[in-house]
Amino acid sequence: MRTRKKPWAEDELENNPRVVTHGEQYCGKWNTFFGNDNPIHIEIGCGKGQFLAKNAATFPSVNFIGMERQQSVAAVAARKLAPETKNAAILWSSAEALLDYLAPGEIKQIYINFCDPWPKKKQSKRRLTSPIFLALYQQVLDPSGRICFKTDNRGLFEYSLNSFCESNWKLSQITLDLHNSDMIGNIMTEYEERFSQQGMPIYRLEATPPLS
Amino acid sequence: MRTRKKPWAEDELENNPRVVTHGEQYCGKWNTFFGNDNPIHIEIGCGKGQFLAKNAATFPSVNFIGMERQQSVAAVAARKLAPETKNAAILWSSAEALLDYLAPGEIKQIYINFCDPWPKKKQSKRRLTSPIFLALYQQVLDPSGRICFKTDNRGLFEYSLNSFCESNWKLSQITLDLHNSDMIGNIMTEYEERFSQQGMPIYRLEATPPLS
Repeated sequence: MRTRKKPWAEDELENNPRVVTHGEQYCGKWNTFFGNDNPIHIEIGCGKGQFLAKNAATFPSVNFIGMERQQSVAAVAARKLAPETKNAAILWSSAEALLDYLAPGEIKQIYINFCDPWPKKKQSKRRLTSPIFLALYQQVLDPSGRICFKTDNRGLFEYSLNSFCESNWKLSQITLDLHNSDMIGNIMTEYEERFSQQGMPIYRLEATPPLS
Repeated sequence: MRTRKKPWAEDELENNPRVVTHGEQYCGKWNTFFGNDNPIHIEIGCGKGQFLAKNAATFPSVNFIGMERQQSVAAVAARKLAPETKNAAILWSSAEALLDYLAPGEIKQIYINFCDPWPKKKQSKRRLTSPIFLALYQQVLDPSGRICFKTDNRGLFEYSLNSFCESNWKLSQITLDLHNSDMIGNIMTEYEERFSQQGMPIYRLEATPPLS
């Protein structure tokens, strides 16, 4: 779903202190941005930021980065973070550039929530759970870290199960119907709230990187 | 679904040359039963035997054992095998006794098709994909062998994905909708024919054992 262009987006991204537009300067030193050595979690494609903002409020001793490539969407997410939310940041960029912004092992947890399924086979490399992206994630993840992945798209979930296994990630907490599962404390995205209300099953898994 | 007791079952199991009622005698020497050294595949819970019979006809250079614990069901499966089907056998027994009948590494492929989901949590150990059973299968499987698992039960498939991963099996060919997938040459069980005609998705995966 496209978000209409916001005329105030550019200003918001430039002036909101929770926004980082040139992430290169913090590569390997996000602790200086956050002002502490707490573990860092990143959401790849944070959309309008509800999941990020709620996580930041629920877990004050974790630092959260929300990466979003669409300018207007990143600006909406930034507005959602109160200036006093010191443990969250919006990084306006796309996932391909991950290695420019994060040093090896700098991240403890990665969230991928309801990303674009790119349903055509020839587009499969663009899926955020393709082996190409998994190799990037592995570089920035702490070896004891993990990816948490959610989607409502059955085809994308099937593809992702195979992709993680093919790349030798270890899967756990796999559910084919999150909202009727035992999971406690699930924090929903805007999209997830809308779709699960319609009775659509939500798929979820966690994955730890292969021993390198 | 229970099969009505067949008065002729005992006779069939005793006199059909494709039936083995005392499998212990062939432990480690199933090649003597089949009269060749072809690879051996086993179906755990072969039901009425359609899958087994069709596989045996399609792959004459593979030997197939169908294990079935219910007497009347095993007898129906045995009747389905023509006496000239030299590459198939019915083993009347339950999966728990697997190690009495098969030597380490004797089996190249295991099929588990539409097994009882045992939906209550306290019954989970009885599921044929529980870690307890996976440990048995690992012992009788050739290290380069695999398990092929199919079910129409979403809860059982979810449980099985987690169980295989927890036990460090490597998964591949995972599909959440077999009959709308790319898979070629799927051989259906009686049950699968009925349920897929009703539009129910069929789940399938393949699993190779952990390096021991």
